[in-house]
Amino acid sequence: MNNNPVNIAIVGAGGLVGRTMLKVLEERNFPVANIKLLASARSAGTILTFKDKELIIEEISDSSFEDVNIALFSAGKDVSINYAPIAVASKCVVIDNGSYWRMNEKVPLVVPEVNPEDAERHTGIIANPNCSTIQLAVALKPIYDNFGINRLVVSTYQSISGAGQKGLDKLNSELQNSDFIHGSGKHRIAFNTIFHEITEESGNSVEEIKMMNELRKILHNEDLRISVTCVRLPILGGHGESVNLVTEKHFELEDLRDVLRKFQGIILADDPINETYPTVSASDGHDEVTVGRLRIDESVTHGLNMWITADNLRKGAATNAVQIAEIVQTKNLFNY
Amino acid sequence: MNNNPVNIAIVGAGGLVGRTMLKVLEERNFPVANIKLLASARSAGTILTFKDKELIIEEISDSSFEDVNIALFSAGKDVSINYAPIAVASKCVVIDNGSYWRMNEKVPLVVPEVNPEDAERHTGIIANPNCSTIQLAVALKPIYDNFGINRLVVSTYQSISGAGQKGLDKLNSELQNSDFIHGSGKHRIAFNTIFHEITEESGNSVEEIKMMNELRKILHNEDLRISVTCVRLPILGGHGESVNLVTEKHFELEDLRDVLRKFQGIILADDPINETYPTVSASDGHDEVTVGRLRIDESVTHGLNMWITADNLRKGAATNAVQIAEIVQTKNLFNY
Repeated sequence: MNNNPVNIAIVGAGGLVGRTMLKVLEERNFPVANIKLLASARSAGTILTFKDKELIIEEISDSSFEDVNIALFSAGKDVSINYAPIAVASKCVVIDNGSYWRMNEKVPLVVPEVNPEDAERHTGIIANPNCSTIQLAVALKPIYDNFGINRLVVSTYQSISGAGQKGLDKLNSELQNSDFIHGSGKHRIAFNTIFHEITEESGNSVEEIKMMNELRKILHNEDLRISVTCVRLPILGGHGESVNLVTEKHFELEDLRDVLRKFQGIILADDPINETYPTVSASDGHDEVTVGRLRIDESVTHGLNMWITADNLRKGAATNAVQIAEIVQTKNLFNY
Repeated sequence: MNNNPVNIAIVGAGGLVGRTMLKVLEERNFPVANIKLLASARSAGTILTFKDKELIIEEISDSSFEDVNIALFSAGKDVSINYAPIAVASKCVVIDNGSYWRMNEKVPLVVPEVNPEDAERHTGIIANPNCSTIQLAVALKPIYDNFGINRLVVSTYQSISGAGQKGLDKLNSELQNSDFIHGSGKHRIAFNTIFHEITEESGNSVEEIKMMNELRKILHNEDLRISVTCVRLPILGGHGESVNLVTEKHFELEDLRDVLRKFQGIILADDPINETYPTVSASDGHDEVTVGRLRIDESVTHGLNMWITADNLRKGAATNAVQIAEIVQTKNLFNY
């Protein structure tokens, strides 16, 4: 176990996820020697606070990573494509929150509660899965290990904060203007349901494709039978997921509750008659994945319904990335 | 065909659905001779407008129905229990929007596009299904008839207007108060996801139970394999439904689109690459059920995903009730 403080960089420090990464590093008392905040020229100069010290965001450059041990990236696709290899060439371990590297065969895709061992085979870059995938993977893992999963159908209820600060700004602006001033896109988000970008011939959105592919990679199961519908909602923070699944083995609800309750990173909130169940607003600001509304689905053998919530900016992004950094640091995964 | 004007009463005329019933009767130019607005003492005296004429809501009494041919009820369970039999005793046909009579064997449960013939066997009361059931039944019917349905899994995205004016008031009050002043219940609705009341041992909410039971009754298929998760959202008007289904027969997406496009009461909005898909806000104020995002679910043979929206106060309640009244009137179903 290594406890030596390391030098950290946050790339995209001015964004919603970047700011949350800084907060989570402080909260978890990550052993930081030096911390460097990086961003494009647009955000450079912004001042953020870490452990009562003011830090100025610097403009990213080719030499930014020379003295950095771990860089947490959340600055958009182009920055990940261009700067992750530069960081790796400086012997800096990159933990990337973007989608570009996730499905690359050389890049482990890690949820620390689910497949921490995958981090050990990294060759410079470790990818953070998509927000909606992370909370699903955590909630499914104890069920997958104990009862097997034959097929699952997921419908998501996602915060507009998944579109970053501009998503929140669009919602706020629409809520304050009865005319619903539109940002990009032809649909309003206030009091509405919208979908992520759809570019695929299959009709699936980019978010739906991510969830199916990433979950298969995290569980090391290329044949996992999964179907997904992802929906964006006028919610500030937190994603909800309605999951219908068919297990391989027979289960009793109490046994399922037991394995979920014992799993690290899960809070079981399942007393719906007393209105105790996961809600996205209750998950907001927390690092755990909350699971509840466990119900037998009588329409099929071994059928189960459940409801999962998590804070998409924390467990769905910043916290998961910092947890990966903790694995890299404690297991001393700097030589590759 | 009967085109003689009839005497209409709206019971619960001051509520969200009651007011919408009045508007829909006017819009559809229903052949009204006289119209009477009824409600509890609390709403009596309120003035509403019908075809430029002011009408005063009267307090309901045992003699209210003596000169009424069709009464549209939407005034809560107790009023339906107590006054529907009184109306029937006066030879008035009751179309009830509440849940109390829906599963009664003597009471037809009717969606005019799906099972209009069931209205003919009424014995005084015809029930209007639950809002979320109506839009699902319309969208499924052409698929059910042409390809069969082996099993379906539904997750709903429901407007808080389903809780009536008090639901909308709670949302508005929470949006205007950063402290999120709570009404009833322990969860806020602003920027959140909540569930309907859960009273059942099974863990299903009352809404989920309704949807499963009512759809089976409307389709005359007691064995229909269906599982449902119903979620309430901070949406003003319109319900969305994410539906995953397995058909009995092979289908091509184009054939599915064809049967949906040709079905009365359905709008097909399915060009997602150009951001054309159903949204709850686009459905708001319309009488049709909008269907889109038709996608093959590759995780199972004959698997399909689709997304359905409708205005829960119109097609989900008021419009469907007025359509039933039109059947009663044109088919002269007054003698029973």
